[in-house]
Amino acid sequence: MLPLLGFRIYINVGGMDKLVCPCFVGEGVFLEEGMEKIKETLKRIESIPRRLYVDARRHLDRLSIPRRSLGRLEDIAQRYAVIKGLKVSPVKKKVIFTFAGDHGVVEEGVSAFPREVTQQMVINFLCGGAGVNVLARHIGAEVVVIDIGVGYDFEPQQGLVIDKVGYGTGNIVRGPAMTYEEGVKSINIGIDLMNKWGEKGVDIVGTGDMGIGNTTPSSAILAVLSGREIEDVTGRGTGIDDEGLKRKISTIRKALDINKPNRDDPIDVLSKVGGYEIGGIAGLIIGAAANKIPVVVDGFISCAGALIALRLEPKIKEYIFTSHISVESGHKVFFDIIGDKPLLDLDMRLGEGTGAALGITLIEAGVKIFLEMATFEDAGVTEGRY
Amino acid sequence: MLPLLGFRIYINVGGMDKLVCPCFVGEGVFLEEGMEKIKETLKRIESIPRRLYVDARRHLDRLSIPRRSLGRLEDIAQRYAVIKGLKVSPVKKKVIFTFAGDHGVVEEGVSAFPREVTQQMVINFLCGGAGVNVLARHIGAEVVVIDIGVGYDFEPQQGLVIDKVGYGTGNIVRGPAMTYEEGVKSINIGIDLMNKWGEKGVDIVGTGDMGIGNTTPSSAILAVLSGREIEDVTGRGTGIDDEGLKRKISTIRKALDINKPNRDDPIDVLSKVGGYEIGGIAGLIIGAAANKIPVVVDGFISCAGALIALRLEPKIKEYIFTSHISVESGHKVFFDIIGDKPLLDLDMRLGEGTGAALGITLIEAGVKIFLEMATFEDAGVTEGRY
Repeated sequence: MLPLLGFRIYINVGGMDKLVCPCFVGEGVFLEEGMEKIKETLKRIESIPRRLYVDARRHLDRLSIPRRSLGRLEDIAQRYAVIKGLKVSPVKKKVIFTFAGDHGVVEEGVSAFPREVTQQMVINFLCGGAGVNVLARHIGAEVVVIDIGVGYDFEPQQGLVIDKVGYGTGNIVRGPAMTYEEGVKSINIGIDLMNKWGEKGVDIVGTGDMGIGNTTPSSAILAVLSGREIEDVTGRGTGIDDEGLKRKISTIRKALDINKPNRDDPIDVLSKVGGYEIGGIAGLIIGAAANKIPVVVDGFISCAGALIALRLEPKIKEYIFTSHISVESGHKVFFDIIGDKPLLDLDMRLGEGTGAALGITLIEAGVKIFLEMATFEDAGVTEGRY
Repeated sequence: MLPLLGFRIYINVGGMDKLVCPCFVGEGVFLEEGMEKIKETLKRIESIPRRLYVDARRHLDRLSIPRRSLGRLEDIAQRYAVIKGLKVSPVKKKVIFTFAGDHGVVEEGVSAFPREVTQQMVINFLCGGAGVNVLARHIGAEVVVIDIGVGYDFEPQQGLVIDKVGYGTGNIVRGPAMTYEEGVKSINIGIDLMNKWGEKGVDIVGTGDMGIGNTTPSSAILAVLSGREIEDVTGRGTGIDDEGLKRKISTIRKALDINKPNRDDPIDVLSKVGGYEIGGIAGLIIGAAANKIPVVVDGFISCAGALIALRLEPKIKEYIFTSHISVESGHKVFFDIIGDKPLLDLDMRLGEGTGAALGITLIEAGVKIFLEMATFEDAGVTEGRY
């Protein structure tokens, strides 16, 4: 860390001059580099040509079923095919990336669980006994856990990436969750991870999260980016009671009053009221879109990350699949504003990547329909009159 | 076939004297035997003791996740566990039974496909190129096709059970789809199949159907058993246009006027306006419940079969899982009247067992959560305050 100097440093972010605060000289340089990488990655994201959608649809319409009778399973297949530039091969390598981070806001009593559960659950993931491990095994996926900001030092081990931005965010009722630079860094961790895995070869990825207290920053992000009332986007998380819910809503209100996040700058929102794992997820989604890898978004926390990514580059929408809608009340708002429909609605609210896992197996089913089904011609089946 | 004699034979069915018509002497005897078998099977179906539900729930509440945070995946796991008497083992042997039959009503122009597509699709199933084959392979299930009444003679082959009730039903606008005895026989084919597979050992089964024109009898059955307007339960099937939909509704109206099915006797309804494959599915579901084997109900046609089974014995509800809701408008009515919620809502309307296949993989996921997850104690994770 360079010594603190009294300069104010402005960085151009999304066309706006952005004050870096607190303003270390070194940080300004890192921030500029970090922003440059995000911008370059966003620039690599391309709209998928319409003709690919048409060609994929044409193939699906030849399959020996009444036209479009597999409904959204066909839509999934079509979207997967176009992301792959119609070079569709079986879905083999599947990875769920579960980002873990701690949250200073837990001290406000916004969660039914104590903060140390984040680190305990990371260990549970690494032992293979958590929900996401079970469901990932079920669908033949690997789980990679990223310690992006847990308040604990884990031993290096198989399945764990240690890339800390910090040891837990700041309490957002007292100040920002993190500096702008840390927000940029958390996003770049996701991007770097996806670039690395893109090179190694991965067919599809899923997002996941672990962080006691993280529905609070997710609701805060959603409130700012959607412009909706805090009450409309705030739910019970892991299961707080009525009193806890009231406290959570007032905590978010205080956090927004104190931090005044700029809704036109998603990274400012992430930094002021977000979380490290949410930034990591946003980065993973950006990196997946840049590398043309389909990315399956898990539950409410992942959707907060997805919303940041989508606000930075709306084209990302063509590369994401939303796996499920949870009982967390803000989740519906997310679907309303992005105009999407989840694959599943099973009243789940666990996170970790559990919804992404179930989503991936449905997408794989759709891809198999695309690849393995006989056409009317192959099967000698008479076509219908429509 | 015995020669026709002029007797009228009454059989006591569900407390009512039932006229067998047309009345062959031999048929009366077969009918009595057939009814006896159905009644005996229905008697074997037991309500699952409440304490099993409580014990299964207790186990799920110990898992290292916020209580009930896997939502309906936990409910699935609980229901699977209680059906198995809490002796839960991994879901290994999975079979989808696809019943195929033809329908005389096709000559009224109620389908977008010609009748011969039923037989063509059976061959497609046996070659492994149809939608249900692809999705069954995806979930590791076997597909067994039952020719219960296709208007074609297939060569005996692997994966095909030939057990014909007839070569297609009668045109329901001109008379009954089949005799009461044939209705009983079709149900018993499903029961026998399930008894046989129950002995061989199967962990879970799914239903499926193939029969050009079979949304028409399914809607007719639903109209009678739900008491709802024909318009409310009739959709576009494989994809007929507005004109075709009007014709289909008026066809069902004529069929109900002519046949006057007795809504208090589900077998009468099946016989007068149903189909062989619908009876087979009803029988399979009855047999599954009697053998305590979880059965996953596919789409709209399977739900018509399920409704017949449920009206014969409401306890069956504890043994069935409804896989998905289709775009067929009557499907919603089915869920309304049985008070259930489908696992999936993907705008599918193919049948064959495709929805059942996707449902089975979600159930298997739930069972794995039940079996493989670490408890709070195992994982050393602190429990929440609720």
